Parts: sequence; C-alpha cells; structure tokens
Amino acid sequence: MNYLSRLKSIPVLEGMKDEDLKALSELVKEHKTPAGEDLITEGETGSEMYILIEGKVDVIKKTIFGDPFVVASMDAGMHCVFGEIAMIDNDKRSATVRATSDCVTLSINRKNFDKFCDDRPECGVKLLRLISMNLARNIRKENDNLRMVYQALIEEIETG
Amino acid sequence: MNYLSRLKSIPVLEGMKDEDLKALSELVKEHKTPAGEDLITEGETGSEMYILIEGKVDVIKKTIFGDPFVVASMDAGMHCVFGEIAMIDNDKRSATVRATSDCVTLSINRKNFDKFCDDRPECGVKLLRLISMNLARNIRKENDNLRMVYQALIEEIETG
Repeated sequence: MNYLSRLKSIPVLEGMKDEDLKALSELVKEHKTPAGEDLITEGETGSEMYILIEGKVDVIKKTIFGDPFVVASMDAGMHCVFGEIAMIDNDKRSATVRATSDCVTLSINRKNFDKFCDDRPECGVKLLRLISMNLARNIRKENDNLRMVYQALIEEIETG
Repeated sequence: MNYLSRLKSIPVLEGMKDEDLKALSELVKEHKTPAGEDLITEGETGSEMYILIEGKVDVIKKTIFGDPFVVASMDAGMHCVFGEIAMIDNDKRSATVRATSDCVTLSINRKNFDKFCDDRPECGVKLLRLISMNLARNIRKENDNLRMVYQALIEEIETG
C-alpha cells in the first residue's frame, strides 16, 4: 500500500514536492494500534520514529520505583512525532507510548530515514529541522520538570 | 579573516568538501574569551551556536533559588558544540557557558546556519544530524538527572 495521501495530509510536510512525498511514502509503514496497547515500550530497543495520524496516545515514564506516570498526552490533530530520540541516537526507548484510543500511525526506521535524507537532502534538512525543534522542546520541558522536582525536594528538606 | 584552517581541524566536519568548508568559513565568527567570562548567559536571548576550538568551559544552570551549579565541563579536545538549543528553537538560553580558561570559539548564528543548510543541503543534513545527536544526548542526561532528584525527593519524604 502506498501512503501518499496520508503524507499529504500532514501539515509539516507541506511544501515537499510530490515526487519527494512519493519516495517517502515508499519508506514508511502504517500501523493500526488498538486502545490500550503500547506502540513503544520504555527500555526496549527500536529505531522507528512515528507520526500520529488518527487517535490519541499517552507518553508514560516509569519512576525509579517502577511506578508509571503520564508525562504527555497527544492527539492526532497535533500530528505529533514520537520515537525520534531512539531513532536519532540508536539507544533504548526513553518512554512508553500507549494508545488511549484506537490509533493509526506511520513509522519510518533509522535506515530508511537516513536513506531518504541522503537521497533527498533538501527534504532531509526540513525533516531534521523539525526533529531538532522537537528535541529542543523536549529538553526545555525536562528542564522545567527538573526545576519543579528540585524545588519540591528543597521544600521537603526545609520543612521535613 | 577566513577560518578555513580552523574548520578543517574539526573532526565532525571531516568529509565535507573544501568548497563547502570555505562557504561555511565565511559565515562563522571567531571569539577569544578570557577565563572567567561568560560566552552565553542563561535566560538571555541569542541565536548563535558555538564550537569550542581552544580552552575549557563549564555549563552552569541556576536552581530556582538562583544558586549556580555546574552541569557539565567541556574542553576543546571534545570539539563540543553548545548554544544549539536556542539556535534551533529561537528561545532563551537554557544555561550559562563560562570560560574556565582562555577560550577560542567559532560561532554561527541561526540566519547563517539556515542559509548554509538551504544552500548546501548535503552539508545541512550532516550538521543537523550532529545537532540532533547532541540534543538527544542532552535529553537522556536530563532524564537521568530528573530520576536522581526524584529519588532523593521520595527518600526525603519517607525518612523526613
């Protein structure tokens, strides 16, 4: 199956030529994930990056005690990208992504992503800019979380 | 002044053609920063990304109480890049970078970086991959820090 029409509906890919989108559509896979199932599992290996086309997901991390907590909720309207950290650095998944409704996603693995960027560097620059923006946003969010937990720790020490 | 020879000494730029490095060298600026001075100040605006050519720097963040703490130390042998978060997302500096010895850096601002990536997309893909790798590493480090402070908070609550 060719996912060209799916790709054409994604706002961040606007401006890409039809032939580029067609090449990209041949490198992606579609996944249908029922509500409650995990698309990505924290700690596992995996080199795919996903874009959410239909449905809703939660991004979940485990505390050091193994307790899960939801760090973000995303829906298809946001055309969110996830899984990009492990795709970029080839390391373990840093969070679980769980479908909270029936979901449709498109994925691309590291090998195909690299191939697409090398074959069509003008598109590669666009996609890598988007990924970098995502990663930068992620760092700032983690910074805020760290500050918040640090503040709670200091208050706990002072009043405890 | 042209910084071609400087750029040629940077391992991550190996594999770039001479004409690409020459174009890049015309878009960068060299800075000499005495020990003790700040190259970047947390909270300020600024769109330059830096690469450390000579010397040593500390990356410093402030707690919510304004107390500085060193989150990383880097020396020129690592050919570290810093300032890339604000260059990518155009937001405020997320940390201070202070010279701990006399330093030489090369900087490129967002406008020139974008121009270089657009004009020479094959090089753009290489540079943006490096930046993405840097950002991903940064996220994983922040994740570890968050877990550590969270653990300390829980222990403080349980024993406090």
